[in-house]
Amino acid sequence: MHGLMPRKLARAAHLATAPRKPPRVRRRLADRREQLLDLGRALFNERSYDEISIDDIAAAAGISKGLLYHYFPSKRVFYVEGVRAAAAHMLDIVEPVDRDLPPIDRLRVGLDRYLDYVEANARAYATLFRSGMGVDAAVSTIIEETRERILARIVEGLGDPLRVIPPVVALVLRGWIGMVESASLDWLERRREVPRDILRDLLVTSAQTLVVAALERGST
Amino acid sequence: MHGLMPRKLARAAHLATAPRKPPRVRRRLADRREQLLDLGRALFNERSYDEISIDDIAAAAGISKGLLYHYFPSKRVFYVEGVRAAAAHMLDIVEPVDRDLPPIDRLRVGLDRYLDYVEANARAYATLFRSGMGVDAAVSTIIEETRERILARIVEGLGDPLRVIPPVVALVLRGWIGMVESASLDWLERRREVPRDILRDLLVTSAQTLVVAALERGST
Repeated sequence: MHGLMPRKLARAAHLATAPRKPPRVRRRLADRREQLLDLGRALFNERSYDEISIDDIAAAAGISKGLLYHYFPSKRVFYVEGVRAAAAHMLDIVEPVDRDLPPIDRLRVGLDRYLDYVEANARAYATLFRSGMGVDAAVSTIIEETRERILARIVEGLGDPLRVIPPVVALVLRGWIGMVESASLDWLERRREVPRDILRDLLVTSAQTLVVAALERGST
Repeated sequence: MHGLMPRKLARAAHLATAPRKPPRVRRRLADRREQLLDLGRALFNERSYDEISIDDIAAAAGISKGLLYHYFPSKRVFYVEGVRAAAAHMLDIVEPVDRDLPPIDRLRVGLDRYLDYVEANARAYATLFRSGMGVDAAVSTIIEETRERILARIVEGLGDPLRVIPPVVALVLRGWIGMVESASLDWLERRREVPRDILRDLLVTSAQTLVVAALERGST
């Protein structure tokens, strides 16, 4: 994994966690870094990647370009780190608080929160999955890891009997996650006239049907 | 649309169809170009985009680099044009010959051929959807157009009563196409132990269930 990390990115990670600084300074650096990433999330949700320059980011943050480079060595690293933070944030939001809900209700609540997130970050979401720049190796790795974590949570939500998940169920659920992404994008960009609740319910029903069908077919 | 075409690409298109050459020469140029793209398809199915140089392509074709540049001004243009040719080729393969089959059988046959194609072009398929370079603006446009054409064919296959497709049906079908892509990738890369017929049947069932559910929910 570490081998995949571009040198600049490794340097950014190093800067953020440089061990030689005293704890309070480190915390302040980390907070500042997080604030910058929050700001980036807002910026990349307003304009496309290509439309935003390092100067714009520094200006919006009210700091010098030099200081910005201290935290993030390039626009690409800033974007990649922003995607990483956004993915973690999204996972936190989606996680349903009430673990006692039946699986299907947990899925419904989770999807609702996912669609909340997607709606609130429409442009950034579209950039991530659609635009030319969205997919470089580092971003692609983050997207894949996020899908795997979503899959793990769904499987966990299915309950004990499925602790060892049959490959066919994992396969249809990975497919289903792709469906959620594609349908979300299509809904955001072109078919907002479809009520969101209907989209959510259709996605829930489809997960249910797929898992049941996979279990039936998979064991034959 | 034309405005989206990078200048180099426009030049390549121009070179391939330059109107001043006599018809026989033009045809020979077009044939040669197609042969080169076929070769490219094979190369990009063996190795990743970054692993293949313009020199490799020229060597494999047995022509000089200069002559290759005559057909394609850069590796990226060569790749983009290869993706365009591959998408057209895939659509031809998937199109079921027998238009009298019931919708569900047409879908099953179409999916079978799609999976044939995906299996025969596994590495290129993964590069297209997964790797860092796969998605630039030109490639992304081709992928989107291909999805739209697949959607149009499915809708056509649903028959006359649905000539005017409700948005909710279009939405779930766009989602479904995303599921087919994600499940195909996951199957190719990680879950080949699931029999292909089972994957195909689950995808067919899911399309059927989704359309029925969308029609029910969409009209309420």
